[in-house]
Amino acid sequence: MRRFPEPISNLVAAFSALPGVGPKTALRYVYYLLKQPKSDLHTMANSLRILCEKINTCDQCYTYTEDDRCPICIDSQRNDSILCVVEESRDISTIEATGKYTGKYLVLGGTLNPIEGMTPDVIRIKELYNKLEQENDITEVILALSPTVYGETTILYISKYLKDRQMKVSRLARGLPVGATIEFADEVTLGDALSSRKQI
Amino acid sequence: MRRFPEPISNLVAAFSALPGVGPKTALRYVYYLLKQPKSDLHTMANSLRILCEKINTCDQCYTYTEDDRCPICIDSQRNDSILCVVEESRDISTIEATGKYTGKYLVLGGTLNPIEGMTPDVIRIKELYNKLEQENDITEVILALSPTVYGETTILYISKYLKDRQMKVSRLARGLPVGATIEFADEVTLGDALSSRKQI
Repeated sequence: MRRFPEPISNLVAAFSALPGVGPKTALRYVYYLLKQPKSDLHTMANSLRILCEKINTCDQCYTYTEDDRCPICIDSQRNDSILCVVEESRDISTIEATGKYTGKYLVLGGTLNPIEGMTPDVIRIKELYNKLEQENDITEVILALSPTVYGETTILYISKYLKDRQMKVSRLARGLPVGATIEFADEVTLGDALSSRKQI
Repeated sequence: MRRFPEPISNLVAAFSALPGVGPKTALRYVYYLLKQPKSDLHTMANSLRILCEKINTCDQCYTYTEDDRCPICIDSQRNDSILCVVEESRDISTIEATGKYTGKYLVLGGTLNPIEGMTPDVIRIKELYNKLEQENDITEVILALSPTVYGETTILYISKYLKDRQMKVSRLARGLPVGATIEFADEVTLGDALSSRKQI
């Protein structure tokens, strides 16, 4: 057993809870912080407190925001007729960075994974259906979920319900990512890229 | 450019300063924290503040401690005649965990690496020499530094000075670590293990 002064071991325990961080990495972080100016530690502690106090969930799209409603939901320039369903709040900024989407968003908060307890009641599927019933402007739903087993399951689950209701549903195209070599592409991706080939 | 609410991007910036943490990992940490109960964030912020306020450097061995002097330096049971010189404060707890050392310590605060600005004035070589001159009880100095280029340079530098002063100086044994296979051992380590072989 390695023993450290209590303030050190307490922070090691707190950092160890972060994803992918074990006690050794956490200890490395703490010893790094101990060598920094005290103002840096205060800045980090303050940032944590502010995060805790100031971050809310948007009441429209459920993304993290500083106010009751996020800048995208209050932006009257955005297209109200398309709704992009994403897994997590961070996916919104990734899609926004492409500059190719001008519609609104809805954060599901996860993908279906019953073994891990992610059932349709836990993620925001009900909220999505309610939103679609209340807002008649919406003509298309983009299910921008990752093409993993759980993402695909969720796409299948939601698209089935929406198609019964005559709603236009789309998903992100599958194909070769920029910079990929055909040699290392998997069969499913390459097959999708072939069948969705584009005329030049 | 991906944009996030300011409290999020501030904490991402703070976490990005940690060793081995880039903006993507930092963002992953922040989004993980956002999903945790607010009490966990408060605990982490508090641990950071307490670390900042309560951790001092021991005035004898320069390790991190809550008081002016560390528990090892005030322990009268410890052997005053051996001094173990380590690179960092954390190395003390690693050596203590072996249970095979009962002497005192001195934290150098680094190894000699002039390119990175680690000259003999920056690390605590002067403090080591002063301690050895003031405390006549010390009969042996163990240079427990890592067998890297910089560790070896530091060992050479200090041992030369100490040998001129008729001080017994030792270093950690080099050899095969437990669990190693001879197949993958490097020549230097295997050579050391051969020349320092032990009779069974």
